[in-house]
Amino acid sequence: MSVMDAAAGAVRGRRPELYARYRLPEPVLVTRPTMPALAKYQEQIAGIWERQWLTNNGQLHQEFEARLAAYLEVEHLSLFCNGTIALLVALQALRIHEGEVITTPFTFPATVHVLYWNRIRPVFCDIDEYTFNLDPNCIERLIGPDTKAILPVHVFGYPCNIGAIQEIADRHGLDVIYDAAHAFGVRHRGQPLASYGDLSVLSFHATKLFSSIEGGAIVASTAAEKKRIDFLKNFGFADEETVIGPGINGKMNEFQAAYGLLELDLIDEEIVRRRALVELYRRELADVPGISFRLDLPETEHNYAYFPILVDASAYGMDRDALHAELKQFNIFTRKYFFPLCSTIPCYLSLPSADPKHLPVAERVSKRILCLPIYGRLAPETVQQICAVIKVLGKS
Amino acid sequence: MSVMDAAAGAVRGRRPELYARYRLPEPVLVTRPTMPALAKYQEQIAGIWERQWLTNNGQLHQEFEARLAAYLEVEHLSLFCNGTIALLVALQALRIHEGEVITTPFTFPATVHVLYWNRIRPVFCDIDEYTFNLDPNCIERLIGPDTKAILPVHVFGYPCNIGAIQEIADRHGLDVIYDAAHAFGVRHRGQPLASYGDLSVLSFHATKLFSSIEGGAIVASTAAEKKRIDFLKNFGFADEETVIGPGINGKMNEFQAAYGLLELDLIDEEIVRRRALVELYRRELADVPGISFRLDLPETEHNYAYFPILVDASAYGMDRDALHAELKQFNIFTRKYFFPLCSTIPCYLSLPSADPKHLPVAERVSKRILCLPIYGRLAPETVQQICAVIKVLGKS
Repeated sequence: MSVMDAAAGAVRGRRPELYARYRLPEPVLVTRPTMPALAKYQEQIAGIWERQWLTNNGQLHQEFEARLAAYLEVEHLSLFCNGTIALLVALQALRIHEGEVITTPFTFPATVHVLYWNRIRPVFCDIDEYTFNLDPNCIERLIGPDTKAILPVHVFGYPCNIGAIQEIADRHGLDVIYDAAHAFGVRHRGQPLASYGDLSVLSFHATKLFSSIEGGAIVASTAAEKKRIDFLKNFGFADEETVIGPGINGKMNEFQAAYGLLELDLIDEEIVRRRALVELYRRELADVPGISFRLDLPETEHNYAYFPILVDASAYGMDRDALHAELKQFNIFTRKYFFPLCSTIPCYLSLPSADPKHLPVAERVSKRILCLPIYGRLAPETVQQICAVIKVLGKS
Repeated sequence: MSVMDAAAGAVRGRRPELYARYRLPEPVLVTRPTMPALAKYQEQIAGIWERQWLTNNGQLHQEFEARLAAYLEVEHLSLFCNGTIALLVALQALRIHEGEVITTPFTFPATVHVLYWNRIRPVFCDIDEYTFNLDPNCIERLIGPDTKAILPVHVFGYPCNIGAIQEIADRHGLDVIYDAAHAFGVRHRGQPLASYGDLSVLSFHATKLFSSIEGGAIVASTAAEKKRIDFLKNFGFADEETVIGPGINGKMNEFQAAYGLLELDLIDEEIVRRRALVELYRRELADVPGISFRLDLPETEHNYAYFPILVDASAYGMDRDALHAELKQFNIFTRKYFFPLCSTIPCYLSLPSADPKHLPVAERVSKRILCLPIYGRLAPETVQQICAVIKVLGKS
């Protein structure tokens, strides 16, 4: 029997006692959406009934797009029905629809699927141990004659090594599209993180820090790019009778925009609250053997959207999967995020770059990572209870 | 000076007089969404705040999916964020992602764009003079070794020649996917029109007869197909840790489902009202030289979603484009739908099947078609006023 099995067995034996003492009275989910007051939303949508205009660049859409761009301090932003369609259109906007794109296996499947939809072969590149982002040292050896672009992800809102990636891209004449799905509101080196790269793509899914129910956006560098993106998200229509290319329906509707507008009033407070919870988690878990986490990076204003830990089984006495399962018994619902690696999805598994031997860091991180519950309304006491459970499980 | 120029000139000369007499006091748009009462919608969404569940197969989504399937009398239905993404996934669900698919040029660009996104070369087939749908007599000569499927459209909700198309498909071993975006609620030969074909795809865009703000659905033949479609619209996730293929985000959110549920209570009345307006249009325009329209088809319960007319310039004295432009001056906003043909979109123009000489009927219809305003709340008096303008412009 391994150490882990023994530990798991020990916990099982002590369950009744531990449950009685530590089990949370209500299920704690990994996240809950930040919601505006119902009455405010009900009021916000009344205008839709007056105008009888439900989608297709309506008044709330225009207002949300402008206010969001101002909040994020970017000039050219296009709203989308969701972040996946935004990423799909971003590649199309840059005419990347063949060859290879270098990306990370440590991401949500959407990042890689949009390459498939754009007829592109993903090339998986290993990640950096600390930031979980593309390791610039591994990128260059993957560049070949068919490489068109680099698609890095600011995982958990931690900035990629922007400078190194841009230098490689410039040297080889590649586009850089950032999947900034986690990076809402993050600032880096005095600039919004979403302003880096040729294009940056945001997600406003309900589970994200900032939400428009479902939703997403592309941040473009120029007005011309934004214009083209706006055509492409509306089937390619440049005017009523001119279609400039194979667009798609990527339109955000008025009800999403109404929600997003109200969320803008809540986001600053939400980040403040999450920051306090992250700091609390860091204090509470600082001395738990086998549990590690990331601190703030220099020159970065973080958004504290997630609180991922790494579980070192030998030091903690239980591996990540066991901890994830045990926590459920205590009414604590965590998320193996990102697990499994995208390189292990059957449709990408046979790619040469998907071989685990080329992705040692990503493999290790993916097997150890666990995202703990975090959202603004989560009570600090609950975080303390979660940490108490993690401590007691580790000791057992 | 041609007859048409002369007629247009005559109208221009008489404008002040005609405007004074016939101009509508308020703009009449080609359509307006059927909207539930604001208070009902406000009440309907309150549960979303209680459950704090905004998307990802929420309670309203489940309820809407079940009630919609029951209303349409189909067994297996999957909701989508919009009809375009539904159509894109429908092809993927059948593993149609190479080769050729035969479709119509007389459709909204989305029909053809989803072929592009699935790596398929569209093959344009001419249409039937009366129904505006794929002409079965033209299909077979377009079938080659690379043909994978037929993608017909029930244009304006008029059923395609289901029997002939299925016979051709069966003879050649092809799938049939119906774009039923216009066909909500239509019944044909004792069955819901959406139940024909391997898959049928519906659209619930705000401008459609039945709407969920934006939205769409796939009607599948089996429970296994629906299950696979539900995986694919959620990034391919079969469970928390298994991705079965390159899916996408096609999810309908709770706010759309809430809207769709309330629309179900309105749809029967909406069809009754539109039917009365269509009958009124038919009576009023019956004797206008150069203006023609379609009557009901046998064995069909129509949905009366649109009222398209064909303008024969030589008999009417003005061509379709001129009529469209003139009507605007009278505050009547019609739509050249579908114009231009998808075969004329630059990215498809160079396909051999896009040559206008192979598409004579589609070419002719596309240049003559004009959709007149129709929606349930449109007053019969307004239809009479619109017809009066059409009559006076034709005589001038």
